[in-house]
Amino acid sequence: MPASFAPSGKALIPFVNVENMLALVHQYGIERCLHELTDYIEADFRRWELFDKTPRVASHSPIGVIELMPASDGTDYAFKFVNGHPSNTKRGLQTVTAFGVLASVETGYPELFSEMTLLTALRTAATSALAARTLAAKGADTAAIIGNGAQSEFQILALASVCGIKNFRLYDVDPAATARCMVNLEGKGVALTACSSGEDAVEGAQVITTCTADKRYQTILTDNLVGAGVHVNAIGGDCPGKTELHRDILLRSDIFTEYTPQTRIEGDIQQLDEDHPVTELWQVLTGASSGRTRDRQVTIFDGVGFAVEDFSALRWLRDRVGDHDISSPLDLIADPDDPRDLFGMLKRYAARA
Amino acid sequence: MPASFAPSGKALIPFVNVENMLALVHQYGIERCLHELTDYIEADFRRWELFDKTPRVASHSPIGVIELMPASDGTDYAFKFVNGHPSNTKRGLQTVTAFGVLASVETGYPELFSEMTLLTALRTAATSALAARTLAAKGADTAAIIGNGAQSEFQILALASVCGIKNFRLYDVDPAATARCMVNLEGKGVALTACSSGEDAVEGAQVITTCTADKRYQTILTDNLVGAGVHVNAIGGDCPGKTELHRDILLRSDIFTEYTPQTRIEGDIQQLDEDHPVTELWQVLTGASSGRTRDRQVTIFDGVGFAVEDFSALRWLRDRVGDHDISSPLDLIADPDDPRDLFGMLKRYAARA
Repeated sequence: MPASFAPSGKALIPFVNVENMLALVHQYGIERCLHELTDYIEADFRRWELFDKTPRVASHSPIGVIELMPASDGTDYAFKFVNGHPSNTKRGLQTVTAFGVLASVETGYPELFSEMTLLTALRTAATSALAARTLAAKGADTAAIIGNGAQSEFQILALASVCGIKNFRLYDVDPAATARCMVNLEGKGVALTACSSGEDAVEGAQVITTCTADKRYQTILTDNLVGAGVHVNAIGGDCPGKTELHRDILLRSDIFTEYTPQTRIEGDIQQLDEDHPVTELWQVLTGASSGRTRDRQVTIFDGVGFAVEDFSALRWLRDRVGDHDISSPLDLIADPDDPRDLFGMLKRYAARA
Repeated sequence: MPASFAPSGKALIPFVNVENMLALVHQYGIERCLHELTDYIEADFRRWELFDKTPRVASHSPIGVIELMPASDGTDYAFKFVNGHPSNTKRGLQTVTAFGVLASVETGYPELFSEMTLLTALRTAATSALAARTLAAKGADTAAIIGNGAQSEFQILALASVCGIKNFRLYDVDPAATARCMVNLEGKGVALTACSSGEDAVEGAQVITTCTADKRYQTILTDNLVGAGVHVNAIGGDCPGKTELHRDILLRSDIFTEYTPQTRIEGDIQQLDEDHPVTELWQVLTGASSGRTRDRQVTIFDGVGFAVEDFSALRWLRDRVGDHDISSPLDLIADPDDPRDLFGMLKRYAARA
């Protein structure tokens, strides 16, 4: 490139690549990341009504989905690109990959571009921890984790660092998944027990997390497995045709959602009538609605993942990238000397090349 | 980064930055780029019914808009991020900046990430040239270009290279804009005449292009300026509250659109009843509808820019990037050794850091 043609500062957007994200989590410690993300998400949920919200924009194909998830608070705008392709693992690819952008509402210019496969795993676990912190019984110390795949370690560390849960009872139809999860979490200060069934796993648990991967109508939790006073984070039922809880559990529980118009399509409540009463989590956080009011109440967080959480995650990341030198500049924005003279860039490039 | 932690090929996405795009256009020649883009857009318009189409997803603020424009043909998926902030020029920033991604529908993985500020300028001009090639009178050799801002040089070179138009009559309320356009196009083999008014500019023109920038209801073309047999490319009227043509011109012309549900909101036809008959350009290209049928017919292409054109542009770019070495690899996709073991990436990073 001709020396005098180096892009100006306006053209350069900070980019957090996968290696940068790994370095950030390593330097900070994953527990601190999860704790901070939970607080950022809570802060944004508390100002929920400010946000320009829309259900994700999905492009479906027979073997998967590609989605765009935008959200804005009037100052910042964020969107995430995310795919879901269950058959990818057979090819050695991720089921879910993601990246995203934070932009200025005032200028429309992107301000941060980031990998979000890892960041989505972190924010999904942080959102679950926020739900448990808000809705689970006080003093809860034991959680069942049913489904020990890619999201399980994140869920466990978030419940441990944010909610103080010490004991985790793991179950997966594939014992190798449970074994891998336990190896991955060695030395993390959590007590892990491998269980032989879902029934075994829920024994003594005040919190039950379902995070299974199969895209079909499943009954991971039958009605008898959910006892009085339990809080359920139902995370895996997150698209049409993919559910985890028996309908009878939903009918005797109080159900909490992120953004209800999206959850009615994608969450476990797709099994219920469209007018079945639910409460959005932000309403509990602001005091507009009540959360847990009785010892024997069963609360369910029907999590599907919403754009505001990605907005919070990118906002957190921008603050961390600002503190530290964890990004590289991308020459993404054409920056002509005179903004009305885009063609002039081509002409000057030709003259100097 | 630990040496053994370098990302695998699956993690790396080709990125075309601004400098790469300038180099590509310089190497190929802008005329060839415009001609090829026109053919790619025509090819996609001819298979229009295959596409998963949706109006752009807009986030409006008092001073601008940020939009996501997705489209898919079932094999490839594309989206563009684009902003529109008229007040940006006062800060030395672009009114419109853009970037985009092409992804595989089969895996959901991104395959190309690119700057699209320059690419959008090219595809917008190519789409106008496609409309003129399809609808203008045979043998047209003179065009009026009203509005000589950032898009004008691209429009002129596209009409010249794709439609064989030789003479261009330029008018802008700001004579400096016309002068800059003429200087930028010196040596490009087009005959340019600076005109003192819109009325002067349309003299003898068989094609009239309006590409003005002001975001308001304007009457760039009054009814008397559009004579029998003329083709109008109305490009600048492209969002609610921004129009260029007097309503009476629309009422006596045959109107052609890209994707009508979007054009009714954003194009000059926002001035007409919602059921006013229009024809989509793809219908003319496939022969499903007729285009120009009479010498004295006035045809109007009410262009607003549609996601399929960005899809075509990214498809063209991928083919060119494949031929040549014009991109750099971005470490965008987390690629664990075992795709179900995302957490393992963090653990291995920590072990090797």
